[in-house]
Amino acid sequence: MTSTLDETAALERFYGDVAAAGLQPLWTQTRDLMTPTPRGGTRAHRWPWATLAALAHRSGDLIPIERGGERRVLALANPGLDGLPFATSTLWAAVQFLGPRETAPAHRHSPGAVRFVLQGEGVWTAVDGDPCPMSPGDLVLTPGGTWHEHHNPGDGTMIWFDGLDLPMVAALDAVFFETRDDEAPNTAAPERSPGEALHGHPGLRPDGVPAPPGRSPLSVYRRAHTDAALADLAALRPDAPSVGVTFTDPTTGRDVLPTMRCRMERLRPGARTATTRTVGSSVRVVFSGRGTTTVDGQTFAWGPGDMITVPSWAAVDHRADEPADVFVLSDAPVIEALRLDRHAVVDPQD
Amino acid sequence: MTSTLDETAALERFYGDVAAAGLQPLWTQTRDLMTPTPRGGTRAHRWPWATLAALAHRSGDLIPIERGGERRVLALANPGLDGLPFATSTLWAAVQFLGPRETAPAHRHSPGAVRFVLQGEGVWTAVDGDPCPMSPGDLVLTPGGTWHEHHNPGDGTMIWFDGLDLPMVAALDAVFFETRDDEAPNTAAPERSPGEALHGHPGLRPDGVPAPPGRSPLSVYRRAHTDAALADLAALRPDAPSVGVTFTDPTTGRDVLPTMRCRMERLRPGARTATTRTVGSSVRVVFSGRGTTTVDGQTFAWGPGDMITVPSWAAVDHRADEPADVFVLSDAPVIEALRLDRHAVVDPQD
Amino acid sequence: MTSTLDETAALERFYGDVAAAGLQPLWTQTRDLMTPTPRGGTRAHRWPWATLAALAHRSGDLIPIERGGERRVLALANPGLDGLPFATSTLWAAVQFLGPRETAPAHRHSPGAVRFVLQGEGVWTAVDGDPCPMSPGDLVLTPGGTWHEHHNPGDGTMIWFDGLDLPMVAALDAVFFETRDDEAPNTAAPERSPGEALHGHPGLRPDGVPAPPGRSPLSVYRRAHTDAALADLAALRPDAPSVGVTFTDPTTGRDVLPTMRCRMERLRPGARTATTRTVGSSVRVVFSGRGTTTVDGQTFAWGPGDMITVPSWAAVDHRADEPADVFVLSDAPVIEALRLDRHAVVDPQD
Amino acid sequence: MTSTLDETAALERFYGDVAAAGLQPLWTQTRDLMTPTPRGGTRAHRWPWATLAALAHRSGDLIPIERGGERRVLALANPGLDGLPFATSTLWAAVQFLGPRETAPAHRHSPGAVRFVLQGEGVWTAVDGDPCPMSPGDLVLTPGGTWHEHHNPGDGTMIWFDGLDLPMVAALDAVFFETRDDEAPNTAAPERSPGEALHGHPGLRPDGVPAPPGRSPLSVYRRAHTDAALADLAALRPDAPSVGVTFTDPTTGRDVLPTMRCRMERLRPGARTATTRTVGSSVRVVFSGRGTTTVDGQTFAWGPGDMITVPSWAAVDHRADEPADVFVLSDAPVIEALRLDRHAVVDPQD
Repeated sequence: MTSTLDETAALERFYGDVAAAGLQPLWTQTRDLMTPTPRGGTRAHRWPWATLAALAHRSGDLIPIERGGERRVLALANPGLDGLPFATSTLWAAVQFLGPRETAPAHRHSPGAVRFVLQGEGVWTAVDGDPCPMSPGDLVLTPGGTWHEHHNPGDGTMIWFDGLDLPMVAALDAVFFETRDDEAPNTAAPERSPGEALHGHPGLRPDGVPAPPGRSPLSVYRRAHTDAALADLAALRPDAPSVGVTFTDPTTGRDVLPTMRCRMERLRPGARTATTRTVGSSVRVVFSGRGTTTVDGQTFAWGPGDMITVPSWAAVDHRADEPADVFVLSDAPVIEALRLDRHAVVDPQD
Repeated sequence: MTSTLDETAALERFYGDVAAAGLQPLWTQTRDLMTPTPRGGTRAHRWPWATLAALAHRSGDLIPIERGGERRVLALANPGLDGLPFATSTLWAAVQFLGPRETAPAHRHSPGAVRFVLQGEGVWTAVDGDPCPMSPGDLVLTPGGTWHEHHNPGDGTMIWFDGLDLPMVAALDAVFFETRDDEAPNTAAPERSPGEALHGHPGLRPDGVPAPPGRSPLSVYRRAHTDAALADLAALRPDAPSVGVTFTDPTTGRDVLPTMRCRMERLRPGARTATTRTVGSSVRVVFSGRGTTTVDGQTFAWGPGDMITVPSWAAVDHRADEPADVFVLSDAPVIEALRLDRHAVVDPQD
Repeated sequence: MTSTLDETAALERFYGDVAAAGLQPLWTQTRDLMTPTPRGGTRAHRWPWATLAALAHRSGDLIPIERGGERRVLALANPGLDGLPFATSTLWAAVQFLGPRETAPAHRHSPGAVRFVLQGEGVWTAVDGDPCPMSPGDLVLTPGGTWHEHHNPGDGTMIWFDGLDLPMVAALDAVFFETRDDEAPNTAAPERSPGEALHGHPGLRPDGVPAPPGRSPLSVYRRAHTDAALADLAALRPDAPSVGVTFTDPTTGRDVLPTMRCRMERLRPGARTATTRTVGSSVRVVFSGRGTTTVDGQTFAWGPGDMITVPSWAAVDHRADEPADVFVLSDAPVIEALRLDRHAVVDPQD
Repeated sequence: MTSTLDETAALERFYGDVAAAGLQPLWTQTRDLMTPTPRGGTRAHRWPWATLAALAHRSGDLIPIERGGERRVLALANPGLDGLPFATSTLWAAVQFLGPRETAPAHRHSPGAVRFVLQGEGVWTAVDGDPCPMSPGDLVLTPGGTWHEHHNPGDGTMIWFDGLDLPMVAALDAVFFETRDDEAPNTAAPERSPGEALHGHPGLRPDGVPAPPGRSPLSVYRRAHTDAALADLAALRPDAPSVGVTFTDPTTGRDVLPTMRCRMERLRPGARTATTRTVGSSVRVVFSGRGTTTVDGQTFAWGPGDMITVPSWAAVDHRADEPADVFVLSDAPVIEALRLDRHAVVDPQD
């Protein structure tokens, strides 16, 4: 289509007036806004454990927890997200370090969080007053709005993975944050949380114990149970390249948080999973074992403690070289609640 | 109000015509139909274990399972229900006996059933192909529509409690029944059911395992878990006269069947529970311990294996003389689904 | 199998002891309890309008409303239900008559009720204080637990159909009944109920108006809307032998009551519907038109005001001779909530 | 706290290594990430109708619809959002212009959209094949995933408001977009949509018409109904400064889309609404009347066609100078699904 000089001038005046009015034409940017398939900035990336652990320990030496904004946390900053401290467009992921005899003081915030323990013993977290012991492979929930504080009464250190829905909650302009002073004493870790005593028995609901609305009343999920569940499932499906379990609210069977799904996968050595695309992003935290993950044709080797981001709608598959357990955090509950979920099995990546 | 002879004659003709037309006046029977509070026929009653067990064993000697309508079952017939074989107006309750090397063959029916094991070892039940071992204190579900068969490959005998929603399903004219021939071989009991392996881990849902709609995928709830849950709950509430747990579908947190609630209560010796009224009836099956239950002022002493019916809206409380566990079957899910539930705490009965 | 005399004697003693213990053997009655398909007492039956209307008017002459247990109601007594005043095993159905300047005083009960107006004008019903005008073809709800009273401030009479879940609620031992004295004055019928003003606009929910839990906030459904909806549906499906609409709670889209479904069917003259079986019973109340209904091979001719019962799992089809609208009350919500629903299309009945 | 030179150097090295590892410390930015209350970029802003309408008409003269990325749309670009074409952090808002005998061709996308008609007659939109007429004050839904096309067979022009969840769906990396060629002929607008014929009757659900999952089957909500509902509500609440209705899915009573809430408010002249804060943002589109809206102390005068954005957690109140109806689009369903909703009534703004 050709425009005369007059037309060009009219268009220029028009676009100027549009901009001056605080408007933008759709037609000049439709292709960027309405893409055939998702085209966000999040990239697949790997953060190696050696680096994460070394920097976490150095932070312990250098940064007093008081100076640490109350938490000594190093956040995964996805290289595709323009310097934002977000692991994916929707998920915050980080390592948190707690040194000997330290306490990360009580606070609460509208973003929800999960903690997956990677290294250390003897630390415990109070979740709305429920003291939860933490050991490697345990999952601890601090859902949005719950008061939480972390205690390390011992001589060792602990590193855990922090996962938060902060990018989503921030995008919704819904962040609230509060502190308070009266935390629990920094004494020895409990053996078991009262919440676990009440809600940690399979298929049994305690009578007369109201469940908190919208979140799991179980604040800690112990490694022993996850391990047993995966072993049972793998035994029933000996040929599956991988099996998985989803952590759920036992009072509803739904996800532990309204915003994030937590899963644990067990990969069978030598087998390669199907290549799939899924709407929504995830962060994979290797708990044990070694293998490779291929995302849109790019292959990442991984071992214990490594963390890998998987963007929305990327083609992804996994292959373990030795028995491997991987903790997976994703935004799936949000994608599903908004009815945006899609899945596809695609050709294997070579 | 006085009626002349004419009026009386007119009324007589009228009532005659009403009856001839297949009608009935409401006003002559409102008081019987619309009672201030529930006034059903179900009575509180106790069936002692000694009698139940003795007759169950005699039935094993006298009645071949083939002659037994496929099941060797003695049903509690509530003395207030005019000879019907129903424990309450809504619940069927019975003892079932399976002798050495016997099989109760596969069938299915729209009424749902639960089995609570009272005596014996080595029997197992297949629930839609899921073989479930049975031991005292275990709860086994055979929900409406599931194929089920009972196997006793050993030399011992077993007695279990049968609870069914048959009176309700019959009142709704919704009974369907089917048999088939190809049952599983009568071999040694499995150690664990595959369904238990998949769904018996607290707060963990196996990925890629579709749950059956409207019923629990867990077909057996083991005594060890119930005992641990009650012990934990009692430890957290040392002053409570009783604590209880409800058996639930782990994929939804709802009752195990749409028609019946299953609970286990633990009573603290020497304490008396509050006196309460509840809409809906129940059957109490003593698993262990001794005590008394008072219903509308009538007191029943009980010990292991005894069964007691509690009518709707009766004033009821309990007192244990020694540590006691009681399995309780009720129609609460139906009462609640139809929004007929009411509860009241009333003055203690002396 | 042969029994020796000893065996016979042992069996006799056994059965005697079983009966004395308040027990009943299952095996002697399995076939009656566990039937291949539903075999309840409810029979298909027709009550002709001429008889219903004549007796209703005679009751108006003979029975003061005060003597009438507060309501002047003639109940359909199904000939298969042993003299019970129930239309089917689950449903109460009746005609109610209100004479000039009469008031049926305020009461409430746990059984839920619906009223479908057949004849007369100018009456109104207050439902928890919401005054609802009543005209032929209107449906008025008085859900379980709502206070309701009927006013006829005029000189005419009214007859309406009463449908209640009383047989179900009675079977569940859950009947509560209450009266009170302070009813509304017996003045002219309102043009519209406030509830209708709030909730009677399609797809629009008033802000800041809490909906009553578990029941529709709309207490009256007007004939004009039902007629328009059926006309629209019939226009879109010109070849369908019948079309139907279900009355729903506009705040949830669910049935108007937890216990009963209300529908209106429009039958196209000359067409015969498919023959179907459905679990659950129903009462059909002809609003307009003439035709026949065949139930398990038995054919009933019907005209305006006639009422017909359809048992559970009966094979049923309909044929209209002229355009016909039929109000249908059923227990479907209960059947579905308990997951007992089944449907089958069967061969036409000749 | 003082640092020696060595400490400073160590910290510098540490921060350098952290950055090089693709990590970011939380403690240096906690205050920006975890704010006491929401502190997003979205600003309150007004776009006057005179400007919107003039530019829309000029776009009609200058931009062929083919060049227009299939739609001739001018998007509100919030001045606080760094040049993004988004009205708020979560909502896209725009005016769309369709000229005489034009068709905006069929496409579909995962973001959901609503259209609220401001000016013109005779246009219709096909929503998954359901042709919906459009007139001023009508709301038309084109939920995520539905094929839609706009037809103007006449000689006039139309301007409508477009609201989309695009910012949210883009933030979730979940945008899919598709076109197709076979659209409907550009003929005269229908009088009524079939979906409206089926689902547009209050409290009545057509039998045998499956509802589309997760969205309203009603694609057009007509002004006449909204107006009547608001008039009824205002009559029942004569003293309220404003009343409102929410557009809902009649099959569930829930919001019309999983991502956006649509409401219409009617403001009473002379009254001022309470000042409130709410989590979540909204766009207000004045349909009729004049008044002012105060947001965090800044007052905006408005008249017909004006559009105003309200940020999350801003203090807001309204005052009408003449009877006024305002269409309000918000992200409330997402805020509520993720359990992030909070409300507060605060002191009036002077």
